[in-house]
Amino acid sequence: MDGSWWGKSCALPSQEHRERATARQQQLTKPAGALGRIERLAVDLAAMQATDRPRAVRAPVLLFAADHGVVAQGVSAYPADVTVQMLANFAAGGAAIAVLARELGLPLHLRDVGTLAESTVAGATTDKPCRGTRDLSLHAAMSGSELAHALAAGRRAVEEACGGADLVLLGEMGIGNTTAASALACAIGGLPAQGLVGAGTGLDAGRIAHKCGVVERALALHRAPISAAACPALEALRRVGGLEIAALAGAMIASAQCGVPVLVDGFIVSAAALAAVGLNPAVRDWLLFSHGSAEQGHARLLALLEATPLLQLDLRLGEGSGAALALPLLRLACALHNDMATFADAAVAGAASA
Amino acid sequence: MDGSWWGKSCALPSQEHRERATARQQQLTKPAGALGRIERLAVDLAAMQATDRPRAVRAPVLLFAADHGVVAQGVSAYPADVTVQMLANFAAGGAAIAVLARELGLPLHLRDVGTLAESTVAGATTDKPCRGTRDLSLHAAMSGSELAHALAAGRRAVEEACGGADLVLLGEMGIGNTTAASALACAIGGLPAQGLVGAGTGLDAGRIAHKCGVVERALALHRAPISAAACPALEALRRVGGLEIAALAGAMIASAQCGVPVLVDGFIVSAAALAAVGLNPAVRDWLLFSHGSAEQGHARLLALLEATPLLQLDLRLGEGSGAALALPLLRLACALHNDMATFADAAVAGAASA
Repeated sequence: MDGSWWGKSCALPSQEHRERATARQQQLTKPAGALGRIERLAVDLAAMQATDRPRAVRAPVLLFAADHGVVAQGVSAYPADVTVQMLANFAAGGAAIAVLARELGLPLHLRDVGTLAESTVAGATTDKPCRGTRDLSLHAAMSGSELAHALAAGRRAVEEACGGADLVLLGEMGIGNTTAASALACAIGGLPAQGLVGAGTGLDAGRIAHKCGVVERALALHRAPISAAACPALEALRRVGGLEIAALAGAMIASAQCGVPVLVDGFIVSAAALAAVGLNPAVRDWLLFSHGSAEQGHARLLALLEATPLLQLDLRLGEGSGAALALPLLRLACALHNDMATFADAAVAGAASA
Repeated sequence: MDGSWWGKSCALPSQEHRERATARQQQLTKPAGALGRIERLAVDLAAMQATDRPRAVRAPVLLFAADHGVVAQGVSAYPADVTVQMLANFAAGGAAIAVLARELGLPLHLRDVGTLAESTVAGATTDKPCRGTRDLSLHAAMSGSELAHALAAGRRAVEEACGGADLVLLGEMGIGNTTAASALACAIGGLPAQGLVGAGTGLDAGRIAHKCGVVERALALHRAPISAAACPALEALRRVGGLEIAALAGAMIASAQCGVPVLVDGFIVSAAALAAVGLNPAVRDWLLFSHGSAEQGHARLLALLEATPLLQLDLRLGEGSGAALALPLLRLACALHNDMATFADAAVAGAASA
């Protein structure tokens, strides 16, 4: 797969703007460092946006939906029908991400990249190679061309929605996708299923153990060919990933290539980030992490990505809802960076030298 | 002090609305509990506001400023002049809380309850019994009448600013006030200074040790009379507190008495909360905690209050800035609670029964 679009080089955050933003933070009327991670957030955005005035106003949400053959193994508390029902609920404005997008003034772009729907869901764009993946506990989830289509669907969504965006928020919907995301994270990170596999939409302990067994069987089936592949992350994505997970990875890579920061949501989007960074390590520089989820494997995934998320609120919904909940922190970080007075402006005395 | 206004009964959150809000959260189109602490936030606000549609739109910030005689002991990285300079910076719009209030549409009420200023600072209301406290390492910080004035100044601020408010945000400014807050928390919580006393606006290890010694001397001087007092929390506030800390405690009590939720900021406001709850335990039901600060004693203070804050962003600025940064979470929690579709509305299938 050498020469594929996803391996092409990413934009580089501006070191010059990073240094200037860091210097400005030292001059604002507050003890140096007193705004903690909020300062770092403004500096990161200034570097990524190559600007002295970072902003997080125009922030489209790209939400990718798909279905998963592995649902046949009884890994979810909800039936597969719910993926398409929720896609309609996103479009109708009743789902969490729809409410959040409305409150925050974010355009919500819905992309069906592989649900079981036979026709287009009103309000969503259909861009899918097939209706759902094959059962990853028995087969490779996708063919090579299906995977390539899903990755490109992510790129197309970025191209269509992200012109002039300050950053992009990524979300997903797909009954069964915590199973795929867990298998993917285990396959890429070399981790055991135990500890990575969690409750998803709300399994009890017995059903988590069953789901864990399904992931273990999938890993036993696919591990050797994944390890032997030229790009193990790509082969892992094809064998144990999902169409929406591949689209998310494609969207991250495309965003990084055109220099648009990405606000990562929870467990599923983080698993996609692991795949994206596996395909193209420079993507990592463009990722901001919104929250640490209640899904038990998320902390390990974040550790693999060396990421410290902004929020810890026991969220486990997906949809991009955690990213949306964190967005005001980015907006306020920018306002503070841009609009606070300096010590000189305000005629406030600085700290006494030691 | 029996019969004082601050001991009078508080409003009661509505159990009926709490139950109704909890039931509604179960019916919204998401797995039960999937919005984690955001769900609890909406339920708490519904109970406090006795409504089926909680909101966090009208949220004035009350910011109390005062000076501290203990600054003479070299406990702060900044000179005492900075209190009044920053009060002017709040009024001029250049300080962090001023920027945040503007972005979020929050009225910012500045109250000088005891700075060293000889005249009124433009843009602030003066309501002070004296200019600064006495040095708490050598004397009681306040007389009984000064304390009563400061407590009542907090109540007056609530009465003037909080009619029709959905909640109130509390902040403070006062060079030296982490020393007073540390001493107060130690005196009320029965804790040693070591571990409670921290860097404040940015002391190095040597100066933290010096500050810790100052607090230890203060505690040695005042502990016996505080313990012997009819209301130890009140006597602790008088002897080792601060005028803005007393005003914050008075504001919390007045808010709880008239049924307005309070969003607590960082270390100083939490110390005031400990005093307020000591004066009137029912105040605790009206407090929401915005963030866990980088100030090292804050975690212990929150533990004493049995509080889990919403954010952990290594903030240590004060001013109400952490409360303002958390406010969007309350607003979004309300929007989700009020505007999400139910499973029945959206024709989405629920979880399969076990």
